[in-house]
Amino acid sequence: MGKSGLLNASDIHGVWSILPTPSKPDASDWRATNTVDLDETARAVEGLIAAGANGILSMGTLGECESLTWEEKKVFMQTIVETARGRVPVFVGTTTLNTRDTIEQTRYAHSIGADGTMLGIPMWCNPCVDMAVQYYKDVAEAVPEMNIAIYANTEAFKFDFPRAFWARVSEIRQVVAAKYIGIEFLLQDLHLTKHRMKLLPLDYQYYAAARMDDFVDAFWSSGTVCGPLVSTTLRDKVIAARRTKDWTDAHAFQGRLVKTAAPFPEDSFKTFSIYNVALEKGRIDAAGWMNAGPVRPPYNDICPASYLDSWKASGQRWAELHKQLETESSGK
Amino acid sequence: MGKSGLLNASDIHGVWSILPTPSKPDASDWRATNTVDLDETARAVEGLIAAGANGILSMGTLGECESLTWEEKKVFMQTIVETARGRVPVFVGTTTLNTRDTIEQTRYAHSIGADGTMLGIPMWCNPCVDMAVQYYKDVAEAVPEMNIAIYANTEAFKFDFPRAFWARVSEIRQVVAAKYIGIEFLLQDLHLTKHRMKLLPLDYQYYAAARMDDFVDAFWSSGTVCGPLVSTTLRDKVIAARRTKDWTDAHAFQGRLVKTAAPFPEDSFKTFSIYNVALEKGRIDAAGWMNAGPVRPPYNDICPASYLDSWKASGQRWAELHKQLETESSGK
Amino acid sequence: MGKSGLLNASDIHGVWSILPTPSKPDASDWRATNTVDLDETARAVEGLIAAGANGILSMGTLGECESLTWEEKKVFMQTIVETARGRVPVFVGTTTLNTRDTIEQTRYAHSIGADGTMLGIPMWCNPCVDMAVQYYKDVAEAVPEMNIAIYANTEAFKFDFPRAFWARVSEIRQVVAAKYIGIEFLLQDLHLTKHRMKLLPLDYQYYAAARMDDFVDAFWSSGTVCGPLVSTTLRDKVIAARRTKDWTDAHAFQGRLVKTAAPFPEDSFKTFSIYNVALEKGRIDAAGWMNAGPVRPPYNDICPASYLDSWKASGQRWAELHKQLETESSGK
Amino acid sequence: MGKSGLLNASDIHGVWSILPTPSKPDASDWRATNTVDLDETARAVEGLIAAGANGILSMGTLGECESLTWEEKKVFMQTIVETARGRVPVFVGTTTLNTRDTIEQTRYAHSIGADGTMLGIPMWCNPCVDMAVQYYKDVAEAVPEMNIAIYANTEAFKFDFPRAFWARVSEIRQVVAAKYIGIEFLLQDLHLTKHRMKLLPLDYQYYAAARMDDFVDAFWSSGTVCGPLVSTTLRDKVIAARRTKDWTDAHAFQGRLVKTAAPFPEDSFKTFSIYNVALEKGRIDAAGWMNAGPVRPPYNDICPASYLDSWKASGQRWAELHKQLETESSGK
Repeated sequence: MGKSGLLNASDIHGVWSILPTPSKPDASDWRATNTVDLDETARAVEGLIAAGANGILSMGTLGECESLTWEEKKVFMQTIVETARGRVPVFVGTTTLNTRDTIEQTRYAHSIGADGTMLGIPMWCNPCVDMAVQYYKDVAEAVPEMNIAIYANTEAFKFDFPRAFWARVSEIRQVVAAKYIGIEFLLQDLHLTKHRMKLLPLDYQYYAAARMDDFVDAFWSSGTVCGPLVSTTLRDKVIAARRTKDWTDAHAFQGRLVKTAAPFPEDSFKTFSIYNVALEKGRIDAAGWMNAGPVRPPYNDICPASYLDSWKASGQRWAELHKQLETESSGK
Repeated sequence: MGKSGLLNASDIHGVWSILPTPSKPDASDWRATNTVDLDETARAVEGLIAAGANGILSMGTLGECESLTWEEKKVFMQTIVETARGRVPVFVGTTTLNTRDTIEQTRYAHSIGADGTMLGIPMWCNPCVDMAVQYYKDVAEAVPEMNIAIYANTEAFKFDFPRAFWARVSEIRQVVAAKYIGIEFLLQDLHLTKHRMKLLPLDYQYYAAARMDDFVDAFWSSGTVCGPLVSTTLRDKVIAARRTKDWTDAHAFQGRLVKTAAPFPEDSFKTFSIYNVALEKGRIDAAGWMNAGPVRPPYNDICPASYLDSWKASGQRWAELHKQLETESSGK
Repeated sequence: MGKSGLLNASDIHGVWSILPTPSKPDASDWRATNTVDLDETARAVEGLIAAGANGILSMGTLGECESLTWEEKKVFMQTIVETARGRVPVFVGTTTLNTRDTIEQTRYAHSIGADGTMLGIPMWCNPCVDMAVQYYKDVAEAVPEMNIAIYANTEAFKFDFPRAFWARVSEIRQVVAAKYIGIEFLLQDLHLTKHRMKLLPLDYQYYAAARMDDFVDAFWSSGTVCGPLVSTTLRDKVIAARRTKDWTDAHAFQGRLVKTAAPFPEDSFKTFSIYNVALEKGRIDAAGWMNAGPVRPPYNDICPASYLDSWKASGQRWAELHKQLETESSGK
Repeated sequence: MGKSGLLNASDIHGVWSILPTPSKPDASDWRATNTVDLDETARAVEGLIAAGANGILSMGTLGECESLTWEEKKVFMQTIVETARGRVPVFVGTTTLNTRDTIEQTRYAHSIGADGTMLGIPMWCNPCVDMAVQYYKDVAEAVPEMNIAIYANTEAFKFDFPRAFWARVSEIRQVVAAKYIGIEFLLQDLHLTKHRMKLLPLDYQYYAAARMDDFVDAFWSSGTVCGPLVSTTLRDKVIAARRTKDWTDAHAFQGRLVKTAAPFPEDSFKTFSIYNVALEKGRIDAAGWMNAGPVRPPYNDICPASYLDSWKASGQRWAELHKQLETESSGK
C-alpha cells in the first residue's frame, strides 16, 4: 500500500523527477529478458532523493512503459518503492491498452507500496472526453486508495486534453496531479480544475507558469536525472521570488536554463514523438549523472544521428549548468 | 502449429471474414472477467466456414484486441482454431505495445495452431517506416513459421502506411497479406509489393479494386458476419466477370452492395475511429446473423445514438440483401 | 461569350490538359511585370489542339492563379481563347479570396469567350460544405452562361471535399465537371452526383478510374504538356478496351505510364503542396515539349534540389515515352 | 506617407485595437458594392483614440481583408488614416495571394499615410519558412518606409510560425511587431527575436505574457471595440504592477476579464476559423459599442446559431465589464 495514503493537491510541490527505466547493454535486442538495470535504478532513486527531488514519476513514454514486459515493470517498480522507502511520493506508470489491464497493474502497484500512478489513456482507438473521463473514474473506483497523476501527452494518446476534460477529471478525488503539457491553456485549466489538482508544467516552462499563478509550485523534469541541482535551483529561485516579490534572480536563472534546451526535431512535437525514447535516453546518458542505457524494441535504432546529437548536446549543457551551480553554491 | 504451414500470396483468396470477439452480457463492466462468449464464437466460425468464407481474421480493432485480457485472448483463439480445424486459414491478432509482448503472443498463437497473425504496429510512440519494418522483421524472425497479415489502420497506428513501407515489408517472406485500407494507392502498392503478398481491400471497394488489377482476388469483410451470402456473392460475381470478361453483373451487384453501407460519422475516418467498436458491434447485432454483444471498456457507452442508429440500419440492410440473395439463389 | 455555350457532362470527355502559365526569364523577380510569355502560350495551345487534346484547363495551382496579377491573367486568358478559337473548350481559373472578386473575374472571362472556369474555393478562412456550395451557387447565378469545373485540391483549399459537397454542388446546372482528386471515393461520388457532372481523375489514375465505371471517360493531365501523345494514347487505349472488352492492352500501357511518375516529396501531398509550382514547372521544362519558365513570387527559389531533380526526371521519362509512342505509331 | 516614419519595437506599446470593417446592411449580398460603412469607421476610430487605444490594426481576418474588394479597401484605409490624423499608428492589412499584389497594396497604403501593414502570408500553396521570410523581405524592400506587423494566424496561413521563422523575420528592419498567437512559445520567441520586434499577445493572455517578461508591454485586442475601458484598464493594471511589484490587482482583474471570454466552437481553433468573421462581428455587435454589420460573402450565413449565441454573450459580458469599470472609475 502507498506510503503516503491519499494525497491532496497541496501535497504535490517542488521537483517531480521523471525517472527513465535503466536498461542493460543488450536491451535493444528483442531476445533479451530482464532488461532492467536494477542497481542503476536504486542508485538513481537514492541520488534523486539525496539531491532533494520532491517526487518521482516513472514509466511514462521515456520511461518505456510501452516497451517493458509486465515482469520487468514489476521488478522495476519494486526497486523504486523499496529504495524510496516513503521519503518521497512515487508514481509509477500503469498505462495499458484498456481499463482492465490498467486496473490489474494499478492494483499491483498499490499493493507493493507505490503512492500513485502516472496514468495515460488507452491509445488504440481515438479517445474522446467521455471515454477518457470514464476510464479514469473506473480506475479510481477499482483502486480507491491509489493517487492518480494524469499523464497528458497529446501525441502518445491522440488526445488534445481539452478544457472539458480537465474540468471533469479533476472532480475525481484521487486525481491529484497532472504531468501537464504546455502553458497555452494553463490559466484556463487552473480555473477549471478549481485547485483540486496540481498541473505540473515542464521544467523549461516552470518560470513562466509560476509567474502566471501562485498555485503553480511544482513541475516535472526529465532533466533532473541530468543533474538535479538545476531542478532544485529552479524550484528554490521561484520560492525566493515569491517571498521577496523580486523575480529578477528567477528570471535570470530561466535565461541560463533555457540555453540547455534542445529543439524538437523539425521543430515539431509530432516528429519528436517518433524518437522520444532515443532522444531522452541519449540526452540523459550524455549528461552522465545516470545511465539510462539502450532503447528497448521497437523504438531502438531508428533515430537519425543529427537529431540525437542535438539532444546529447542538450544533456551536456544541462550537466555543465549543474556543475556551475555546484561551484557557485560551494563558493557561497 | 499452424495447420497450413507457410502460405504464399496465392493461397490467400476470396472472402476473409473479420470475426468480432463475442461478449457476454456483462462485458462492459470493468469488473467482468472471462467475457468471451465461446459458444457464440464456435457457432460463428462454424457458420462462416459452412457459408464458404475463405479465411478468418480476428482481434483487430472491432475484434477488441485492444480491450481483451491476455487470458481472454488465449481462450478465444483456441476456440477459433479448434472450431476451424484447418478448414480455412485462421489469423489472430497479436498486436501489443511492443515487440517482445507481440512475440510472446504470436508464439502462443502459433503453438496452438493459428495460421497467422493479423498484426498492427505498436502505437504509443509515432511509428516511422524504419521502426515499422524492423518490428515486422523481428516478429517474423522470432516466430519463423507464422504467417503475417499486415493490419493497416491509419488511425489506430498513427501511420500512413506509405509506399516505402509496402515495398520493404513485402520483402519479409512471412508477410503474405494485408488488411489493406483504401484503393487510392492500390495500383502503386501492387507494383511495389511485386505479387509477394495480397493486399485485401474492404468488401465495399472490392469491385473497384478487382477491376484495377487481376491480382486482386481477395478482400476483407466485417459484413460477412452480417450475412455471409453477400460476401460470397460478391466474390463469385468477380470470378464470373473475369471468366466472361463481362462485368455488367458484378457492377450491378456493386450497386446493390453499396446501398447497405453506413457513412462514417461526420464523413470522417478519424471520428469513426473513436466509435469503431460500438458502431461495428452495433451493426453486426442489428443484422442478426451473430451476436457480437456489448463493447468492452474503455470503449463502452460513448457512442452517440444517432451514429449508432445509422450503423444499425446498415447492418439491417446488409441482412436484407443476404435474405434477398437466398431467395434469388433458391429461385434458380 | 463562351464558344460552346452551356455544356453538359457528356460534352466533357477525353484529355483535359492542364496548361501552365509560361513565364518570361525575369518572372521570379517581384519587380517584374507582364511576365506571361504569350508567344509560348499560343504555341502550346496550338500544339495541344493539334495533338488532339479535348479540353484545356488553366490557372489552377501550377498555372499560378495565385501569383499572377489581374493584368497578366487577362492577357493570358485572351491569348488562350483567341488561339483555341472554339476548337476545344477552354476553362480558365478565376479563384480569388472571395465571391465578389471571383464573380468579377469570371464575368470578364466569359465576356472574352472562355467556356468555363476551373474554380477553387476561397481559402483564407476554413471552408465548410455550406460555404463552399453557396459560393459556387453565387458565382453560377452571377454568370449564368459560364460553365464551371470544380477545382478540388484538398491542401490548397483546406477542404476535404466530402460526399455531401459533391451531392449538393452537382445540383448546380452550370457545374459540369471537376478536376477531381484521388479515386478513393470516386464510386461513391459518381453515385451522389448522378451523372450531372464529370469527375476527372488524374492521368495516372485514369486507367483504374475508367475500369470502375464506364461513365468515367475524361481525365486531367499536367503531363500532356510534357508530351501529348502519352495522354491521347491513354485515352484511346481505354476507348478500345471498352469496345473490345479486352483491357490487356490498356493495363499494359498503364504499366508503362506509371513508370514516368514522380513521388511526392516525403510521400506526402501536404509537402508537395509547398513546392507544387516549382516541381510541376521543373518537370514540364525538363520534358522539353514546352517552356513553362521560372516560378513567380512568392513560390520561387524554395524547392530543395533533390525534390526538383526527382520531378525533372519524371518529365524526362514522360518525354521519352512520348517519343517511343511516336516511333511505335509511325512503325505501324 | 506614414505619419510615424519607421518605428522601433519600443514605439509599440499598450492597447492595439483590432478594427472590424463596418458593413452596410446589404453587405452579405454578392451583388453589393461599396459595402463599407465609412461613417461608422470614422466614428469607431475617433472613439478608440479618445478612449486611449495606442494603435490600430485593421483588415486581418475579422477585418475581412479576404472579402473586401480593392476599391473598398482603399476607401476604408483612407477613412482610418484621415480620422486618426497621426494621433496613433495605423496598420492596415495588405495580405493577398502573392508578393506583387501585396506590394501594390502596401505601396498604396503607404502613399496615403498608413504607418504600417499587418501582413499575413499568401495561403494558396503551403508556406515554408524560406518562402515566408523571403516574402516579408521582398515587401520590405519594395516599400522601405513601411512598418510591418507580422500577422500570425496558424489556420488562415496554414503555417506554424515556428521558432526559425521568428529568428529570421525579426532581422528585417521594418518588422517591428507581430499580432502574435498563443503564449506557448513566447519566451523562446522573445529570446530569438532579440528585442527587435514586439510580440503582441491576445488581450486574454496579456496578463500571463506580461508576467513572463517585462519586454511584453503591448497586446492586441478585438475586444477593445466591445468596450475600450476594459483594454485600457488591463494595460494600466500591468503598468501599475510593474511599478509596485505587486501583481495582486492585475491578477484579480485578469480573473474578471477571463469571465467575458467565449470558448472556441468544439474547443477548436480550427473550427473557430470556419466561423471567425461571423463570431467576431456578432460579438462586437452584441456589445453595442460599435456596429460591425453583416458578414461579406462567402462567409455569410454559415455560422450555427449556438456558436453565434455564445459569442454574442461574450460581447455582452465584455460590455458589462466596460460599464462596471466606468462606474468604478467615476466612483473614485
